[in-house]
Amino acid sequence: MSHFERLEAFFQENRERHLQELQDFLRIPSISSLSSHRENMVHAAEWLARQLKTAGMKNVELVPTGGHPVVYGEWLGAPGKTTILIYGHYDVQPVDPLTLWETPPFEPTIRDGKLYARGSADDKGQVFMHLKAVEALMTCTGELPVNVKMFIEGEEETGSYNTAAFIEANQERLAADVLLISDTPLWEAGQPALYYGLKGLCGLQIDLRGPREDLHSGFYGGTVHNPLHALSQILSSLFEPDGRIAIEGFYDKVKPISAAEKTAFDRIPYNETAMQKQLGVPNLFGEHGHTVLERNWARPTLDINGMWGGFQEEGIKTVIPAEAHAKITCRLVDEQDPEEILMMLERHLHTYLPSGVTMSITRFNNQAKPYTCRIDHPAIQAAAKAYQLTYGVSPLFVRIGATIPVVEIFHRLFRLPVVLMGFGLPSENVHAPNEHFHLINFDTGLRTICRYYDEVAVMNDSPSS
Amino acid sequence: MSHFERLEAFFQENRERHLQELQDFLRIPSISSLSSHRENMVHAAEWLARQLKTAGMKNVELVPTGGHPVVYGEWLGAPGKTTILIYGHYDVQPVDPLTLWETPPFEPTIRDGKLYARGSADDKGQVFMHLKAVEALMTCTGELPVNVKMFIEGEEETGSYNTAAFIEANQERLAADVLLISDTPLWEAGQPALYYGLKGLCGLQIDLRGPREDLHSGFYGGTVHNPLHALSQILSSLFEPDGRIAIEGFYDKVKPISAAEKTAFDRIPYNETAMQKQLGVPNLFGEHGHTVLERNWARPTLDINGMWGGFQEEGIKTVIPAEAHAKITCRLVDEQDPEEILMMLERHLHTYLPSGVTMSITRFNNQAKPYTCRIDHPAIQAAAKAYQLTYGVSPLFVRIGATIPVVEIFHRLFRLPVVLMGFGLPSENVHAPNEHFHLINFDTGLRTICRYYDEVAVMNDSPSS
Repeated sequence: MSHFERLEAFFQENRERHLQELQDFLRIPSISSLSSHRENMVHAAEWLARQLKTAGMKNVELVPTGGHPVVYGEWLGAPGKTTILIYGHYDVQPVDPLTLWETPPFEPTIRDGKLYARGSADDKGQVFMHLKAVEALMTCTGELPVNVKMFIEGEEETGSYNTAAFIEANQERLAADVLLISDTPLWEAGQPALYYGLKGLCGLQIDLRGPREDLHSGFYGGTVHNPLHALSQILSSLFEPDGRIAIEGFYDKVKPISAAEKTAFDRIPYNETAMQKQLGVPNLFGEHGHTVLERNWARPTLDINGMWGGFQEEGIKTVIPAEAHAKITCRLVDEQDPEEILMMLERHLHTYLPSGVTMSITRFNNQAKPYTCRIDHPAIQAAAKAYQLTYGVSPLFVRIGATIPVVEIFHRLFRLPVVLMGFGLPSENVHAPNEHFHLINFDTGLRTICRYYDEVAVMNDSPSS
Repeated sequence: MSHFERLEAFFQENRERHLQELQDFLRIPSISSLSSHRENMVHAAEWLARQLKTAGMKNVELVPTGGHPVVYGEWLGAPGKTTILIYGHYDVQPVDPLTLWETPPFEPTIRDGKLYARGSADDKGQVFMHLKAVEALMTCTGELPVNVKMFIEGEEETGSYNTAAFIEANQERLAADVLLISDTPLWEAGQPALYYGLKGLCGLQIDLRGPREDLHSGFYGGTVHNPLHALSQILSSLFEPDGRIAIEGFYDKVKPISAAEKTAFDRIPYNETAMQKQLGVPNLFGEHGHTVLERNWARPTLDINGMWGGFQEEGIKTVIPAEAHAKITCRLVDEQDPEEILMMLERHLHTYLPSGVTMSITRFNNQAKPYTCRIDHPAIQAAAKAYQLTYGVSPLFVRIGATIPVVEIFHRLFRLPVVLMGFGLPSENVHAPNEHFHLINFDTGLRTICRYYDEVAVMNDSPSS
């Protein structure tokens, strides 16, 4: 009986127990953003720590941080072999509006081969798969083909502030050859995807102030620069009519998309008309001269995330408001630096500030540099092979317009390749009511992870970007 | 003992009682906008009706409307003499934030010669003066020098919808030679002002819709036209850089300010630097080529009164919101017609609507045409003389950027001159916490009103605009 036949038998025999355990994990309402859930967070971390020990990990520890604890464990019994650092998170998003959930978010329910619960896909379900992959290998073979460090945090959904500090302070403990994260979706059912590029992020809030108090537009119409008018001028100045961002220097460190990548993008099965229909917009929009995929993956973007001022209730109020506000974030690519972009953005805002209002700017703490990884890196190619062996198709190599802050931190500190090998689906209502996880990908994913360990055990390449 | 000596004695002897009665009136919390205050509204109207009868008015009636009742009374015992229609309102603005009131809004208090209470200046205090002027004349002389109709409504602060219908339906009953309203301030302490021009009003709400749901700016950045960006484009397109309104045709029916009026404006004691300081803005702003007074009084304006969409809480949320909203109102002058201006505005909005979003527009019901009156009209000149006789200085002839909807309705239906002869002060916190009324103007105003009856009793002019 081969190594994989033994694993296969183990997974089948233990499936019911595994699903019961996962549901236990999902019952813990580990919402990191709500201080009322602080005890649940500890409860979830302790549950994880027990599971790590049961699986056979050593030096398992609940490490306190300034916020929610980090769970760490390791198995370093494969000297000379690759060391994989597995990162995931046990915290989940809030669940409101509760009324939209068909079954309660913390009462896991299986329907039609899908497990419904907050965190089932993002990311407790996928973290749990790594636990069970280790448990299976240790049970069936007494060892792992690679060295494994597991590092599961509790603040991913709130920006990983304390986690970033923990990583900086624990570089020796966390040192590895590969960072493996399962927190991204397949491209679509049956079609795995490896994410080799993430965008960076930076942003700020604009607070405009006009008159000292709200004014009656009858008594003061035509006297002052209405802050809402001023804000609309400033915000519209950020864009060219063709969708390009009008901030001076914004594109200086953006590289043209290579011919090879352009060709690869064009091969991705992707339909702009279907997307437009799905989103319900009369037309798609973005930087002129680029496809939707290019814009979302490889071109920087700027979005106004919020804007407000004055009267928002029903009906009419003839007020000239004293204040106007907006929140702006940029998604960055290539060599764009969050600090540098914020400086350019601020310079632009000051340049376009009408002289009748004053402005204050508050930068968001949440910053991340862009990240891309060579797709020919052996750590990535090993993941591709593992997917191929279990899903029966080669994965797509794709990028994503989103940001996972720890990825860039790890990459910057350790210069290690980051393998984003996830098992969710884009349709699984992550961050929304009725989050769920398809059990077919739970099953296949367990096998993919085990395959990956084998494929990545010996790498013939030096870590690289 | 002359007619005026008798009145003087009466006002002095009855001052204490008058102030007690006024405070009784002010104790009734007649907030028209709050349905919980419906009974208080009736209570205030009944209080007024009793006072009208006591003063000697005939045919006193509480007339039900679709909303709060109208109070009507008349004295028509001066055949061949001028008929004055006195209009005022017994409803008041809401009082929040309550914590900012030094004494409770409905517990009238006299401090430093000022009567503090909601409604003391706007408009219960001034309505009460008309009651007491009639009472004094009837008591001292047994008659009035003119015919008087009093028409006090309870919905001025909520837009006078039902009142407008009442006026349309009661044209015969309300017919008069002059409409007299005391609901405007003096120019400053000791300096009365006659308002000969009011602006018109119209407005609408814009609702922009982009994607069906809020989108994650990582997964969808660069794919759709962000509705907040689209809104900022549309709103900023409404203005030229020099502050002119960019809507095609907007100024077509606006007349240049006449040389005579320009000269008159320039004589008004008015300091732009002081105004800028008072408002706390780095610079004043408005249509290029016009002074602040010209812009506020004689040039049309457009204001964004509210604007909102997306995330407004603390911190960051990387969302592309599904919706964006704004409220816009225009203040109109001369021959500008609210319906016509709304059509032009809507045409502009559709012209500048980006193709990636959809828009719906909702017009506000609140519309008013602009109003101006010849200042050489005998009804106005009589008011000037009355002010001169009691305040010892000639009133300033001024305009105002605000709107009193009933003024234009009366003017349109009856083609009668409207005399805006008020006794408040601009500093009396109308619509704000700690509203108050200077008793010096209560006293002087009572005498001014009596003087006005004498001066306007016989007019040598046909009613005119």
